Amino acid sequence: MLIVKKFGGTSVGTPERIMNVARRCVEDYNKGNDIVVVLSAMGKTTDDLIKLAHEVNPKPPKRELDMLMTTGEQVSVAMMGMAMDALGVRAVSLNAYQIAMHTTSTYGNARLKRIDRERILHELEDRKIVIVTGFQGINKYDDYTTLGRGGSDTTAVALAAALHADACEIYTDVDGVYTADPRIVPTARKLKEITYDEMLDLATLGAGVLHNRSVEMAKKYGVKLVVRSSLNYSEGTMVKEEVTVERMLISGVAIDKNADRVSVMGLKDRPGVAFRLFDVLAKAKINVDVILQSIGREGTKDISFTCEDEYVDEAVAVIEANKARLNYESLSCDKNVAKVSIVGAGMMSNPGVAAKMFEALYNEDININMISTSEIRVTVLINEDDCERAANAIHEAFDLGRTHAM
Amino acid sequence: MLIVKKFGGTSVGTPERIMNVARRCVEDYNKGNDIVVVLSAMGKTTDDLIKLAHEVNPKPPKRELDMLMTTGEQVSVAMMGMAMDALGVRAVSLNAYQIAMHTTSTYGNARLKRIDRERILHELEDRKIVIVTGFQGINKYDDYTTLGRGGSDTTAVALAAALHADACEIYTDVDGVYTADPRIVPTARKLKEITYDEMLDLATLGAGVLHNRSVEMAKKYGVKLVVRSSLNYSEGTMVKEEVTVERMLISGVAIDKNADRVSVMGLKDRPGVAFRLFDVLAKAKINVDVILQSIGREGTKDISFTCEDEYVDEAVAVIEANKARLNYESLSCDKNVAKVSIVGAGMMSNPGVAAKMFEALYNEDININMISTSEIRVTVLINEDDCERAANAIHEAFDLGRTHAM
Repeated sequence: MLIVKKFGGTSVGTPERIMNVARRCVEDYNKGNDIVVVLSAMGKTTDDLIKLAHEVNPKPPKRELDMLMTTGEQVSVAMMGMAMDALGVRAVSLNAYQIAMHTTSTYGNARLKRIDRERILHELEDRKIVIVTGFQGINKYDDYTTLGRGGSDTTAVALAAALHADACEIYTDVDGVYTADPRIVPTARKLKEITYDEMLDLATLGAGVLHNRSVEMAKKYGVKLVVRSSLNYSEGTMVKEEVTVERMLISGVAIDKNADRVSVMGLKDRPGVAFRLFDVLAKAKINVDVILQSIGREGTKDISFTCEDEYVDEAVAVIEANKARLNYESLSCDKNVAKVSIVGAGMMSNPGVAAKMFEALYNEDININMISTSEIRVTVLINEDDCERAANAIHEAFDLGRTHAM
Repeated sequence: MLIVKKFGGTSVGTPERIMNVARRCVEDYNKGNDIVVVLSAMGKTTDDLIKLAHEVNPKPPKRELDMLMTTGEQVSVAMMGMAMDALGVRAVSLNAYQIAMHTTSTYGNARLKRIDRERILHELEDRKIVIVTGFQGINKYDDYTTLGRGGSDTTAVALAAALHADACEIYTDVDGVYTADPRIVPTARKLKEITYDEMLDLATLGAGVLHNRSVEMAKKYGVKLVVRSSLNYSEGTMVKEEVTVERMLISGVAIDKNADRVSVMGLKDRPGVAFRLFDVLAKAKINVDVILQSIGREGTKDISFTCEDEYVDEAVAVIEANKARLNYESLSCDKNVAKVSIVGAGMMSNPGVAAKMFEALYNEDININMISTSEIRVTVLINEDDCERAANAIHEAFDLGRTHAM
């Protein structure tokens, strides 16, 4: 088997942890598997480097920032190479230049384009463990780029796809994907399997241990993903096209307290109104999440949307600054809201799912602010103070804590 | 003018110092010059990285150690790029891959082979300051290598040669080459000019601010070297083929307290004796320095040599272990010795120079242990306790403190 294993910054945060990861990889190697290891920078290295950069330039040019940050993963892979050597195993560390990890040109947020497999295959044939820098690439100018948030996961999935690996294991500090955040819902249960689409929704909803881009890429190339803990040998959760066991209606409950609601009321009911509103927000680089449009009084409409905490003040300011152009009556903003979502491929063929969720909330006397649905997801916006109660009630209503169910 | 400027680890040890170096480079850039900057790793970074490596592997493989260490210079150049951007100047940092700095294969101590000038010339034409990682290269396996001691100086000289630069300025924490170590000889004077050969001898004798390899390369390609201080605007010392002003007999006095003497007495006077002795030492990787062979009693010969403090115990052990094969009568070792040398292109045509040095020592009642000479150098081995007095007496005898002399 060819296995790609990805370990994040926490897993390689100290020399001791690096040794632990090395041992774990060597175990699988000694079973006769070919091993490719993808690493992030050690611990808080990336943050430290950004801090260092700001000491000479409050707005460092992104090209130079990438040149700086890419040293972080190179330190990790070199250290891992030495650790494996100490265990008597032949290993070789490779950076973005050495595997020609081509990306788009955008510094700080590049997209992977293609990988030169030759060097890696050659080293694997030589029975070496291959250790690759995550998060980084090179662009057409022959400069370093970085892949943005979740970048190392994406590197791992891309390598697994390019090398036709049998599995891509993503090691984290949790041991899989749960039916809900165990800190909030004590009866939350680890899922054995989950579909790409469910994982994508969970990731978008902030409950994900995987970044969206890596899941999208895994789906596109059919890479079998496994989310596992680097701290224990528990089996983890497999992410794939279709789950093989009988399904529950839903896979999990996700909570996102990081959402605020903005409502623009009394917009003229005319074509282009929504376009103009979201155009000014897009130009201000504000990402909006759930959007809801409803009919207001007397030929007007109301548009509400959610966005992350950090953007909400700017969103309000931008809309106010464009009041004349947007032509609305009033603007309101509620920061004391949270998103609670249920996700599950099973709900597609089962129209009663949303109703069951609403019933659970009604039984708890929790008011619903906004509702948004997709084929495999129902999201409600509720008062932030209610969200723990809501999550537990929904988890209970769908019987997600029952281990025999899946 | 195209100027290559090299700054060592101390000069870029903190963000503040990086800003200072950036300002200094920008000054010359704003005069219309093309500037290429070569940097070492910040402060003690290289030592810290080696320490980190030893935490996972007491004998880290050299390939991985180079992979680790090369991150040090990359951090420096990226930081410098940001600092120059903060000063409103366009700059670009480049690593060994980006300038295709090809070296021999030996990790940890590679030799430069060739540089791809294209990228650098392109960036210079674009009126950018080009910032290059010193000390590192890539080998035929497409792996990182490092150049060993004085490596960044060598990078700077090689770039100056490849780009046909008008000057290669090496910035250090001293402001030039002195007639003697000013801490030992208070009347020591800074030299305005010195020849490559003199500089080479001074470097070998431990007094050098430049590493031998960089001076050798500068000599080979006729690169005009300037040794300057990064702390002030003093003119520094120019190293070139021939000095243009009238010469003193000698350029400087060098002291090396780091030398010990080993004497092997009563060796059979037969061909191959010296070969066998230095062969066992070479196989034990012990570098010997001054070698002296003299005729001993009754068909035997004595061989003495000096080597650095750190090797002397091993040298003695190795010789003793081979006593039967080497066939000598006795072995002695003296750690309380120092080398004092005078260096000067002027002495080639002046046979009285050595005598004048010996006279100065005689007047101070200092006993000479060993003597070794080259065309432009005389070295004596004396008691370590005498070496300050010796250096001052010689400096005085040759009138090196007189500023009008040169």
